[in-house]
Amino acid sequence: MSRLLTTTPRADGFRMPAEWELHAGCWMLWPERSDNWRGGAKPAQHAFAAVAAAIAQGEPVTVCASPAQYIIAREMLDPTVRVVEMTSNDSWIRDCGPTFVVNAAGEVRGVDWKFNAWGGLVGGLYFPWDQDDLVGEKVVEMEGDDRYGPDFILEGGSIDVDGQGAVLATKECLLNPNRNPGLRQDEIEQRLRDYLGVETVIWLDQGVYLDETDGHVDNMCRFVAPGEVVLTWTDDQADPQYARSAAALERLSVARDARGRPLRVHKVYQPAPVLITAAEAAGVDKVPGTLPREPGDRMAASYVNFYIGNGVVVVPAFDDPMDAPAQALLAECFPGRKILPVPAREILLGGGNIHCITQQEPLGQRPAAIRRQA
Amino acid sequence: MSRLLTTTPRADGFRMPAEWELHAGCWMLWPERSDNWRGGAKPAQHAFAAVAAAIAQGEPVTVCASPAQYIIAREMLDPTVRVVEMTSNDSWIRDCGPTFVVNAAGEVRGVDWKFNAWGGLVGGLYFPWDQDDLVGEKVVEMEGDDRYGPDFILEGGSIDVDGQGAVLATKECLLNPNRNPGLRQDEIEQRLRDYLGVETVIWLDQGVYLDETDGHVDNMCRFVAPGEVVLTWTDDQADPQYARSAAALERLSVARDARGRPLRVHKVYQPAPVLITAAEAAGVDKVPGTLPREPGDRMAASYVNFYIGNGVVVVPAFDDPMDAPAQALLAECFPGRKILPVPAREILLGGGNIHCITQQEPLGQRPAAIRRQA
Repeated sequence: MSRLLTTTPRADGFRMPAEWELHAGCWMLWPERSDNWRGGAKPAQHAFAAVAAAIAQGEPVTVCASPAQYIIAREMLDPTVRVVEMTSNDSWIRDCGPTFVVNAAGEVRGVDWKFNAWGGLVGGLYFPWDQDDLVGEKVVEMEGDDRYGPDFILEGGSIDVDGQGAVLATKECLLNPNRNPGLRQDEIEQRLRDYLGVETVIWLDQGVYLDETDGHVDNMCRFVAPGEVVLTWTDDQADPQYARSAAALERLSVARDARGRPLRVHKVYQPAPVLITAAEAAGVDKVPGTLPREPGDRMAASYVNFYIGNGVVVVPAFDDPMDAPAQALLAECFPGRKILPVPAREILLGGGNIHCITQQEPLGQRPAAIRRQA
Repeated sequence: MSRLLTTTPRADGFRMPAEWELHAGCWMLWPERSDNWRGGAKPAQHAFAAVAAAIAQGEPVTVCASPAQYIIAREMLDPTVRVVEMTSNDSWIRDCGPTFVVNAAGEVRGVDWKFNAWGGLVGGLYFPWDQDDLVGEKVVEMEGDDRYGPDFILEGGSIDVDGQGAVLATKECLLNPNRNPGLRQDEIEQRLRDYLGVETVIWLDQGVYLDETDGHVDNMCRFVAPGEVVLTWTDDQADPQYARSAAALERLSVARDARGRPLRVHKVYQPAPVLITAAEAAGVDKVPGTLPREPGDRMAASYVNFYIGNGVVVVPAFDDPMDAPAQALLAECFPGRKILPVPAREILLGGGNIHCITQQEPLGQRPAAIRRQA
């Protein structure tokens, strides 16, 4: 049974593991809304299926599909991928899904944050978001894990942990008044300490230029090991991204993690600006209340939005000359893992990337997951 | 992963266990349709919750609820009961759900029969039944079990096995041309042998009077042990049920099971006729294509429609003088199990009873289920 707990992970001795720690599996949501995904979401579905198949090389993958899409998802996904019915408003389980925490004994629990579609009625990306907000609870309940339900709005993509007491975040997102307007910075830091089991919050000012999430850190800067991060980068000072990345580098160069270590920063050069084509924009239904997709809009393309799975790193590919160097850098950062590039333009067109559409579940002591993998 | 197999359980060494063998858990579907359940299904939901709580005393229970009902089900059900999202057309998982089979090594697989709402376009009870027909696949996929998908219409309530090679069934149902019109009796028997792993089919002619399932055997006659059955009964020769039960008794008295044993028959006296009241009928939405609920209609009330769970037997109660003798008889049949009566009128009003709304999953070697129970 899954109990709703009123304590905190920190008080109970739980912490969010780093993404490179062993997984029980990965959760995804199947895309379908035609007012965000072009062509009735069909191109995006093929891209999601490729991501799922890549991750499934190393760990069990569960894709949650709506009742209307269940058979279609089952048909399009690799047979090794599990499909379960789950309704959502869109397909960003990194942000609306649970954050799993573990303790020293390998017990696993879920943190079921509140979700308001990246800003609620003040800059949120669609309405309503009621089904998204249930995804965390439904996943944790399906797994039979106990659950924390803090009265705190947080998206999983707005934080990144090293599993050793540090978390990366941007002020652009977490201090945005459209998230938790009643809380001061120090109160928000305390929530992160309490629910992620961390000590040190490393604040960057901003995320990637034009990122519609209000600057999620998982598109900007990620831990790749304790004391080591990757940062999306450009040398072009005329690019609005330059000032953002430069400011982050400056901040990171003086930061210390929870164990007092300085951070080694790897620059990952971004691809050339990726713009929405007229044909792509024309494939999206225009609906009041949903963020429109206009021809010529620049998208927040970044290689940093990768997923670290058991034995693999699944990396966005943009058919760009920078694809290869990004993959080479990640291969150095993750020796022993296969680097699996997946064409990601269709995911990016929906407003995020591979990390945004995935949510890892740590292994802990989980016979169910092990059995599924077998 | 869940593979679709093209062999048969029989060929692979699998059989359907008797219901009294150890379970991993029990599956249910949450009632909601207002054209079958009075009062917007609220009274039925309370009754289903009581059944789930009773079964949960002995084994993990999962209740599948639609997206619209998920939060309501979670709120109304005992915290020990797991809730998952699953869409269906109504709530009879005995009939639309999978039949689990096991082999000697404890491996578990699912048989995902075809389902046509008890007769399809010729006497079926509602339209459409597309989501019901997916329930078997969804449950088996969620469990990660391999699956047989025979091209054969069968409801789980139309069969009852002893786990030792025999199955009970009625000709009224299985030979009804609205089920598998292209198959002769001997071909249907072969399907039962192939997919239940049985040797001997014990045919009764008919089920309970006015049973809208076309005489499901699980409301009429059930195994309670190898070589031992209970049969719903009345001594009132003016009751149309009398001839049905008497004919069944005659058939059972000469039957032999797969091991050549004669059957000991326990008569379970039925309650006094249970009629739909005007108030009850008025609470149901009348919709073309769904079987109506008319005031004065007699319902197919029977104590035989019980569920055998780990450590418990959950028995319909009708607030009738026959409740106590039925419970006493089952207590004798199942020494060591708690007899748990649950008021069942609200379930009966929807067209079935406790056995119809439950589906056991055998334990086999299932770490997931054991973990959930802990």
